[in-house]
Amino acid sequence: MASTISMGQYLFRRIASLGVEHIFGVPGDFNLTLLDELFKMPNLKWLGACNELNAAYATDGYARVKGVPGVLVTTYAVGELSAMNGVAGAYAEHAGMIHIVGMPMRILQKARVMLHHTMEPNMDHEIYVGMAEPIRKAHTILKNESTMAEEIDRVITEGVKSRLPVYIYIPMDIVGTPLDATRLDTPLNTKIENSDSKSEDEVVRLTLDLIKKSSKPAILADVLTIRHGGKELVKKLATLTNFPVYSTPLSKGVVDETSSQFNGLYNGSVSFEGVAAELESSDLILNIGYLLSDSNTGGFTRNISEKQLVLLGHDSCQIQDKKFSNIHFLPVLERIVAELEKKSSEYHLPREQLWNKVEVPVLNSSTSGPITQSYMWQRIGGFLKPNDIILAESGTAQFGMPDASFPANITYITQTFWSSIGYTVGACLGACVAAKELKSPGRVVLLVGEGSLQMTVQEIGSYIRFGFTPVIFVINNNGYSIERAINGEKQTYNDVSMLWDHQQMLSFLGARKETGIEGKSFSCKTVEELDGLLKDEEFNKAEKIQVCEVFMDQFDYPWRLSTQIATTRERMKKMQPA
Amino acid sequence: MASTISMGQYLFRRIASLGVEHIFGVPGDFNLTLLDELFKMPNLKWLGACNELNAAYATDGYARVKGVPGVLVTTYAVGELSAMNGVAGAYAEHAGMIHIVGMPMRILQKARVMLHHTMEPNMDHEIYVGMAEPIRKAHTILKNESTMAEEIDRVITEGVKSRLPVYIYIPMDIVGTPLDATRLDTPLNTKIENSDSKSEDEVVRLTLDLIKKSSKPAILADVLTIRHGGKELVKKLATLTNFPVYSTPLSKGVVDETSSQFNGLYNGSVSFEGVAAELESSDLILNIGYLLSDSNTGGFTRNISEKQLVLLGHDSCQIQDKKFSNIHFLPVLERIVAELEKKSSEYHLPREQLWNKVEVPVLNSSTSGPITQSYMWQRIGGFLKPNDIILAESGTAQFGMPDASFPANITYITQTFWSSIGYTVGACLGACVAAKELKSPGRVVLLVGEGSLQMTVQEIGSYIRFGFTPVIFVINNNGYSIERAINGEKQTYNDVSMLWDHQQMLSFLGARKETGIEGKSFSCKTVEELDGLLKDEEFNKAEKIQVCEVFMDQFDYPWRLSTQIATTRERMKKMQPA
Repeated sequence: MASTISMGQYLFRRIASLGVEHIFGVPGDFNLTLLDELFKMPNLKWLGACNELNAAYATDGYARVKGVPGVLVTTYAVGELSAMNGVAGAYAEHAGMIHIVGMPMRILQKARVMLHHTMEPNMDHEIYVGMAEPIRKAHTILKNESTMAEEIDRVITEGVKSRLPVYIYIPMDIVGTPLDATRLDTPLNTKIENSDSKSEDEVVRLTLDLIKKSSKPAILADVLTIRHGGKELVKKLATLTNFPVYSTPLSKGVVDETSSQFNGLYNGSVSFEGVAAELESSDLILNIGYLLSDSNTGGFTRNISEKQLVLLGHDSCQIQDKKFSNIHFLPVLERIVAELEKKSSEYHLPREQLWNKVEVPVLNSSTSGPITQSYMWQRIGGFLKPNDIILAESGTAQFGMPDASFPANITYITQTFWSSIGYTVGACLGACVAAKELKSPGRVVLLVGEGSLQMTVQEIGSYIRFGFTPVIFVINNNGYSIERAINGEKQTYNDVSMLWDHQQMLSFLGARKETGIEGKSFSCKTVEELDGLLKDEEFNKAEKIQVCEVFMDQFDYPWRLSTQIATTRERMKKMQPA
Repeated sequence: MASTISMGQYLFRRIASLGVEHIFGVPGDFNLTLLDELFKMPNLKWLGACNELNAAYATDGYARVKGVPGVLVTTYAVGELSAMNGVAGAYAEHAGMIHIVGMPMRILQKARVMLHHTMEPNMDHEIYVGMAEPIRKAHTILKNESTMAEEIDRVITEGVKSRLPVYIYIPMDIVGTPLDATRLDTPLNTKIENSDSKSEDEVVRLTLDLIKKSSKPAILADVLTIRHGGKELVKKLATLTNFPVYSTPLSKGVVDETSSQFNGLYNGSVSFEGVAAELESSDLILNIGYLLSDSNTGGFTRNISEKQLVLLGHDSCQIQDKKFSNIHFLPVLERIVAELEKKSSEYHLPREQLWNKVEVPVLNSSTSGPITQSYMWQRIGGFLKPNDIILAESGTAQFGMPDASFPANITYITQTFWSSIGYTVGACLGACVAAKELKSPGRVVLLVGEGSLQMTVQEIGSYIRFGFTPVIFVINNNGYSIERAINGEKQTYNDVSMLWDHQQMLSFLGARKETGIEGKSFSCKTVEELDGLLKDEEFNKAEKIQVCEVFMDQFDYPWRLSTQIATTRERMKKMQPA
């Protein structure tokens, strides 16, 4: 017989081949023997989170920084269901994820044994498999020895190519099954190729044609550009063409904001003065890796006509009024860039600057007094340094950060589309792990409201446990401010406990004298205090874990939030039947 | 037009009519207007938890204490998915739950608008409705004004009768829809009735016949007896008959353990010496409200033949070899009790005691030294007082507590079947709320391992926020001991952070001098320390929130856990093909 390898190790070798170095999850009876196989791998490490939802968030955060799918291991039923919202977020926002679920032995499944974690009426151990159907691209339940290796390859490949979650269900009796090791000599083919080459040709040709004819072209690079590995291509495109480049709330940081070509964050009518006018007056907008959700389009206020627009998406493209389904932008963009590079003069490249540079306004130049939303986020922008990784929680941080200007090479993580609060606290763990793997010279900075923090706070303990030193800003403004802005401003349902002492958090969770782990906690109520701390050299170094609690008024909202809500209300009024 | 009431208030009046006084959940954009309706209700209160999973656990705990379905409100997508594992647990273990999900306006749903929380490819806002299908008995999406009231009534009624979760999905634009208020004059009919009266007659007749003929009958009252409101009937049955009564790991406390008729907790071969022999030698076992899962049957080691057995279940009954589907035990039991009461002499009731009382062994009579599993749980039993509510987390607490003897009228909550760790920390919040509503004179006692605590710790802050004073025992034994016992005893995947300082927990989460909320934290490493504390009058009063951290050895397991694992391994060996 040919050389063999255990099913578990086969799986983990394939995973390691993607560049994954850490696997997240929570142990449970039905995945322990699988974890034993993982622990035999010299180049893969296990990282246990406090619970499965947080582990899923961490896996998602890892994927966003590392650029490859993260890997999550849970136990069946209780574990996989707890993780569901985290996996769904990775699905909505294309943070690739391979979710491995340890299941009961096949023989017990077949007999429908009433094990713990099963359910009446029929004790079908696979019932949870069906529940996850809408939040994954592909899945496999490994039952058949003769197809296991193939199935693992298929599902991982689909996960990498789609950047959507995939599930691999593993009955615990099969982790030692010998599989053909020679398969591993052939790397997985994860290259994205469009099967419909005629359509792809057409998309490329039409786009190039429009570029040639355009007098005022622009690039609008959205978030799927980043998720699907197109960031470098966009950079190349920008450099070649000298077109102005715009980002969106979700893609902020996709291009170097200090570059002269960067012309602002476009979010329909919820953009800085001048940005929308400037972009919308372009005669060609190359909208790459688009995601047209409410809060990524200023509440559907983009004012761009089909005539101006080239949409290059992950599953469809549209050139003016011509739609092409099942075309992925990546091969298209590769060909466009290659063509422009080869024939730059034919396309009059690089173009001279026929667009107006939009200046970022200073929203609040206070040097003293209370810390307002208009002050906070631009000031945080000034605190950032090249190579930092920053996570902005859903809520005021997420609606505030678009105000900030970024230095070069910032990785920005926010969940503007899925919008599950508490997400960033888990995602930050994954971001820290990925940053370490990448030997990133930057810091990890977390911006989270106290209400969101309460959702997932235990993971701060994991940062400490594993030796990470993110800078954690806790916005303490007495409740769910984003909800107050939407409805029930003074209703107590928008309150959260105001009794937590954030100054004790690091100490409670492990950073204190007796453990030998250093942590520092700060509290800022005024601009002077915050500004002083943000200028402090020690604080800036981020060599130990630090919390900066920032007190803000509970009825103070970022202007982008208020504006989007007002716009949405207007639109709703019009939509309602009289 | 007849008198009307808003849809929201109609719903909440129906809910209040069940005896529910508090509703649990987390606010989100799509349920805020519904919460506004709730806040108009004088006899219903909102209780916001830190996250949706914990809120679901709290709702479950509330239901188990209150004896009516708990009510959970979440927002669609992120909220409902986060809650899923908690709802699934309520499904598996029949803790009734009404899960209300706030959804986008109907007009937006119809237009498939790409709101936040939606998902590609088709922005179907109802996609999550399908995901919850296996974990509910019934559901309704309220879209049609003309049937809304009827639908609310239908789904609530099904929820109460089945004691299984039901879902009500509410687009946010309908909360003010006027519904016919006069419907509320007719109470919901939630009485359980078997539609197949012929089969019911037969079950009653055959059971009575067996009772009459039996020479050594016994009652084995399992957990669904409690969940489906049969506890008082069983008590009556026991008193009338003088049959010995047994409980199971899940139903512990179903009968007064100090009564002379109580003869032990039966868990197949994982029972105290003598219990199994005594029960299994009965010629008739009335097994009421049965739930035959692995850990509730000593790993399937019950040694009871069909000939001895009457199974009275929530959806089927079996008398010896005769099976009756769709028969609920409650009406059956009512008729049996009535009949026995009426014709007691005909049935030779009360019977004289022909069974042997099994003595509970003292497992460990240490008065000093380290605290062992063999000591811990029986000592906790001695700490309990009549009317206490006690929650034992999955893991060592759950496998240890069957060793304890209870005083009268203990409400015991443990999730032996669903077994989701972290559950009790959320459930304890609900238990505290229900205890307060019921003006229970007892204390609420939580037994949780430090690994499980890390899953859901934030809810300790909710106890403090809402003024509850449970006694919290934190078993600190360095990781997931239940998993160590199963596999990978020394593998680091079974470790959790050992850096948390449980002595600071209450203070961090709100009980400290400056808030004016008192809390006390204790740490016990020896029998002397623990015994001393458990005898302390102040500690016993539980007038403030208290934490008692108990240090135990990480490789010390309750004998019931070790025995079940050994038994299961033996069985697995036999099941495996050679």
